[in-house]
Amino acid sequence: MRAVEIIEKKRDKIELSKEEIEFFVRGYTDGIIPDYQAAAWAMAVLLNGMTAEETTCLTLAMANSGEKLDLSSVVDIVVDKHSSGGVGDKTSLVVVPLARACGLPVGKMSGHGLGFSGGTLDKLESIPGFRTNLTRDEFLHQLGTLGMVLSGQSVDLAPADGKLYALRDVTATVQSIPLIASSIMSKKIAAGAQAIVLDVKVGNGAFMNTLDQAKELAELMVSIGDLSDRTVTALLSDMNQPLGQAVGNALEMKEAILTLRGAGPDNFWAHCLGITGHMLMLGKRARTLAAAKAMAQEALDSGLGLDYLKRLITAQGGDVSYVDHPEKMPEAPIKSVIPAPASGFIHAVHARKVGETAVLLGAGRSKKDDPIDLSVGITVMTKVGDHVESGQPIFIVHARDEATLTLATEQLLTAITIDKQPKAPLPLFYGLVATG
Amino acid sequence: MRAVEIIEKKRDKIELSKEEIEFFVRGYTDGIIPDYQAAAWAMAVLLNGMTAEETTCLTLAMANSGEKLDLSSVVDIVVDKHSSGGVGDKTSLVVVPLARACGLPVGKMSGHGLGFSGGTLDKLESIPGFRTNLTRDEFLHQLGTLGMVLSGQSVDLAPADGKLYALRDVTATVQSIPLIASSIMSKKIAAGAQAIVLDVKVGNGAFMNTLDQAKELAELMVSIGDLSDRTVTALLSDMNQPLGQAVGNALEMKEAILTLRGAGPDNFWAHCLGITGHMLMLGKRARTLAAAKAMAQEALDSGLGLDYLKRLITAQGGDVSYVDHPEKMPEAPIKSVIPAPASGFIHAVHARKVGETAVLLGAGRSKKDDPIDLSVGITVMTKVGDHVESGQPIFIVHARDEATLTLATEQLLTAITIDKQPKAPLPLFYGLVATG
Repeated sequence: MRAVEIIEKKRDKIELSKEEIEFFVRGYTDGIIPDYQAAAWAMAVLLNGMTAEETTCLTLAMANSGEKLDLSSVVDIVVDKHSSGGVGDKTSLVVVPLARACGLPVGKMSGHGLGFSGGTLDKLESIPGFRTNLTRDEFLHQLGTLGMVLSGQSVDLAPADGKLYALRDVTATVQSIPLIASSIMSKKIAAGAQAIVLDVKVGNGAFMNTLDQAKELAELMVSIGDLSDRTVTALLSDMNQPLGQAVGNALEMKEAILTLRGAGPDNFWAHCLGITGHMLMLGKRARTLAAAKAMAQEALDSGLGLDYLKRLITAQGGDVSYVDHPEKMPEAPIKSVIPAPASGFIHAVHARKVGETAVLLGAGRSKKDDPIDLSVGITVMTKVGDHVESGQPIFIVHARDEATLTLATEQLLTAITIDKQPKAPLPLFYGLVATG
Repeated sequence: MRAVEIIEKKRDKIELSKEEIEFFVRGYTDGIIPDYQAAAWAMAVLLNGMTAEETTCLTLAMANSGEKLDLSSVVDIVVDKHSSGGVGDKTSLVVVPLARACGLPVGKMSGHGLGFSGGTLDKLESIPGFRTNLTRDEFLHQLGTLGMVLSGQSVDLAPADGKLYALRDVTATVQSIPLIASSIMSKKIAAGAQAIVLDVKVGNGAFMNTLDQAKELAELMVSIGDLSDRTVTALLSDMNQPLGQAVGNALEMKEAILTLRGAGPDNFWAHCLGITGHMLMLGKRARTLAAAKAMAQEALDSGLGLDYLKRLITAQGGDVSYVDHPEKMPEAPIKSVIPAPASGFIHAVHARKVGETAVLLGAGRSKKDDPIDLSVGITVMTKVGDHVESGQPIFIVHARDEATLTLATEQLLTAITIDKQPKAPLPLFYGLVATG
């Protein structure tokens, strides 16, 4: 087998065999196949596509390229949860303790944010002492004893994916649905997930801009699940406007705590309830979605969800007093209200522009390893469909200086569209794709 | 400007600007743009194509990437000739001295053979002492004094093309018509050509297998000529069967000499007459093709063409006695006749299979820098359309040992198709694409 023949086949739209894909992934990981051949191959994949079978082979080959976690000795079933990334998406901070409060073990590995899309680990680091760098043994031990972990990658999961992703980033081959699907699924499979709830975001603040693209990605990931004996439920959820009100690390951590106290924004809570419900279903803690949601609501109302967040923070070395006193978290020196420039109905709160403004304020990274400011961000006071009066607060900007405040204010005013005509609210979910 | 954005544009089928293409070629030649980005870009070009304007910008950027020859101080007009490569194609050995005999200066840089396709320099090296490695100054001096040169690349023409071609070879991106066209034309332009006759081969023994592909390549190269102020005539010529009878280096050199003596195979001479005619037209030595061909025929009949071959060999240090005594050239120890296995009409003499058999015998290279045997090869005794009787010689194999003879004989029998039904001869030319 020769690498150039495998590239040639993909160039000519011929389906690759399992052996060919394994040969290519192994060769690339071992450095025998050079970057330039992988780059030509990735571009051919992007432009000519891959079947679900090919994508599954690629996923498993990448999942098998490094160490894999076997969680079955620690817990009976492992349900993982993954979001494709968005603006204001602090869902994991709520659903991990909530699902655990309903009796479902969750061992989740998260990441840092990049670009306009935030990362769960950055939000958690608003709690002093909270460790996101558990070792493999600490991860397994905590999952076994507490039944819940929320940490960074404890082992080098799917190193082939890491290497290929870095190459795709500099060769304009990120935007390929089979490559995105295999990248996500390879890490989940290597992390030991048997069942996975995928939160596939759709809209201007997501990597998938259209419902068709998002559906294609969701269907492909569900197929990969089917073909590799994992149960997968993919929810298509809105990311045309930010999720909840808070965008920025400490602001989002505070909103997650508020939500677990039962006082979070309605639509964010409804979103968390949907995700938790599907996790409980996949984990066989409930037989219907209605029953699953009722369990989750009960865990919220009883305060058990909040209690499990505290246990999580304590277990990972964080200062739990911050949960009762969120005001101790870093606060930006400047808080500036942006009033509505006109009366009318909100037609758009452009999620991507809000996300980019958060990066501009210092909440996010333009490139990996950039330092971030935990305190800054934006509070989004309105949702699409709301009626506002001219002068009514629509955003609060949390800035570290006047210069970034000015720029952020300008940019946020271009993110909002107000019109005299009424506008229907945006749905939270556009649909669901599931195994079987 | 960033390389990744240029790849992205090509990926998304957006036309690149002159500045973007120049930036990319310069960056790649200087080693600032790495191989993996060039590989992704080349695959995007292969799959999404390029316009004639983009291809011309690429051609000129590559032509300008190294030293360029300016021949205008030496001769009034420079007509170059290029064949896209085939089996038994010894045309340059005949047309260069013949065109010179008609008063047209020709300064041609040729190459060595690779794969099933032979190379002019290898054939010339059958003459002891003949130098194919003239320096730049020797090239210019000989062109000025003798008005004729046939050598290897005296300067590093279009180094960007050399670097990109090597990368394309290992990334399955050779078969792109815009990349092939710009590769050929960049070297011709860097070599100082003002007018170019392109012999674009079509068929199983050529790089372009179908007439449509060959036409597309020819039209694109003529467009590049138009857009860069060079006059180009592209002839589409047959390469479904070998050209002439001889395939192999010394065998082809002998056939070229025989042809200049007026005793070459009819169809090969007709091919040379066509090419020389168009060269004389572009070089303004004749006003009509008929007049140009008459000049060339006269130069053949008078012996002036052969005389100029001798002058060329003498000027480049070769032993001119070999022209009068071609039997002095290397001869293979074994000559074995293959008889026709049946009576009937010849339907095919598969050029590519014959070319591959020549490589098997040792006449060609599987990879660059492989040693070759000048003596071995094949004499092809029949053409498509001929009637043969069972037992009549159809090939002579010139082999160095019994093992390769056996393999070659087997393979040649699969190259020939004989049928009871009559079959029309193959045309020499399928058409012409010209400037204006």
